[in-house]
Amino acid sequence: MEIQIAKYAGYCYGVERALKMAEDALSKNLLPIYTLGPIIHNPQVVKNLKRKGITPVENLSQVKEGTVIIRSHGVSPQTLAEIKARKLKIIDATCPFVKKAQHCAASLAKEGYKVVIIGEKDHPEVQGLIGYAGKDSQVIEGLKELDSLKKANKLGLVVQTTQSTENFQKIVSQVILKGFEVKIFNTICGATQKRQENARKMAIKTDVMIVVGGKNSANTTRLFQLCLERNPRTYHIETANELKKEWFKEHDIVGITAGASTPKDILEKVVKKISRLF
Amino acid sequence: MEIQIAKYAGYCYGVERALKMAEDALSKNLLPIYTLGPIIHNPQVVKNLKRKGITPVENLSQVKEGTVIIRSHGVSPQTLAEIKARKLKIIDATCPFVKKAQHCAASLAKEGYKVVIIGEKDHPEVQGLIGYAGKDSQVIEGLKELDSLKKANKLGLVVQTTQSTENFQKIVSQVILKGFEVKIFNTICGATQKRQENARKMAIKTDVMIVVGGKNSANTTRLFQLCLERNPRTYHIETANELKKEWFKEHDIVGITAGASTPKDILEKVVKKISRLF
Repeated sequence: MEIQIAKYAGYCYGVERALKMAEDALSKNLLPIYTLGPIIHNPQVVKNLKRKGITPVENLSQVKEGTVIIRSHGVSPQTLAEIKARKLKIIDATCPFVKKAQHCAASLAKEGYKVVIIGEKDHPEVQGLIGYAGKDSQVIEGLKELDSLKKANKLGLVVQTTQSTENFQKIVSQVILKGFEVKIFNTICGATQKRQENARKMAIKTDVMIVVGGKNSANTTRLFQLCLERNPRTYHIETANELKKEWFKEHDIVGITAGASTPKDILEKVVKKISRLF
Repeated sequence: MEIQIAKYAGYCYGVERALKMAEDALSKNLLPIYTLGPIIHNPQVVKNLKRKGITPVENLSQVKEGTVIIRSHGVSPQTLAEIKARKLKIIDATCPFVKKAQHCAASLAKEGYKVVIIGEKDHPEVQGLIGYAGKDSQVIEGLKELDSLKKANKLGLVVQTTQSTENFQKIVSQVILKGFEVKIFNTICGATQKRQENARKMAIKTDVMIVVGGKNSANTTRLFQLCLERNPRTYHIETANELKKEWFKEHDIVGITAGASTPKDILEKVVKKISRLF
């Protein structure tokens, strides 16, 4: 068996930065510490941090005092204002690439464009972007939502940072027929792009593809789908425990990649377990 | 045999307007009258106007006095300045849709975008647009030229008014990967769009497609290609004389469309001749 590990796999800059900020908050003893939603979409990491004293909450009303960490996905300006109004200490761990996308959405709205966000409506990053893009904005996840997009003179586009380039291209090629002037910011982050490109190529060249990362992680799920389209023997797992021997044959070439919120040690355990299979 | 004539066939607004302006110039006796290049890409019409006193010239140096008609395709600001410097009377018959595209190209250049023109490099409309888009601009005709387009922070796009929507979409979906901020003006004219859509649908539903218009007309040639891709029995003719009986079978459904520079009487003669075949 041959194992290939993707060059771009695991923690991205934004996730690494957010986790470091969380650890810093712990070392400075800024307890109680909360995150609005899980700090990253990886249950194992979240569980571990909870044990250390960082509690994920779904709603700000659950927080009476202490510190709130804004996770890498960012929040809307309305949520930010609410945290401030509650006089809580804020640690803003919004990924700089998400910040850039937020800034682009706000500037498009200010310049009079109807803002279209390419992304998943319920994803926290997109929820934050909507806050910057204004009430008139619209989220488009795939071609099926395009019918509801009315023609406009000025359309402005931003993209969820972890979207696939393919989906971005597909949607843009239709949106440009809906407006006379269309201003597009390609806010897909560079690391995401490389990770996806890398995984796509790997899926074609290998016999089995293993994608490691949270089942609730959008970027990992997208990685899984991109690989599955190219290789039917693709599996999405959160930890090494989920691996099944029957997925593999002795002389297989196995490709392994991981989402942006997958820690190195989880990835390493997966590699180790697969290498011991035969 | 059943004959269907496309709803949008023949003279477009810009061509009709330019020809009316030429006739006006004749009636006002503004002789000698010149056009820079043929006034429209239809040899029959140009020949007819030449007989009345409107001479197409390739170069301004051939014009010493009189009136110059700027044809519907427009000219670059440099050429316009040259006509003015020669103190010739100017009749500007630039199509308003082309004028709009020129304005868009100029505003993109002014705002610091590297301007990309989707169109045919040697077409007079595109040559004019380049003058507005600046020295740094680049013409992209199809996917093959995309490799030479370097990545840039700000890319601005305009389209030759008679380009096909399909080509526009195909190129845009690649260009958006070359710049972080891409501002697009969809300057394809509405009439062209309708004409092409109409022809595309017709080509699928008919047995034979006849596309009438100048062999030197870019928009007619594009119409021909769009139909040919959908119906192998597609023929491009300039006049009824070129029709061949062997193209048709007795019970065929025949679709007829015509380019934006094709006069009504030429189209009518084609219809008449086909209807008499069986």
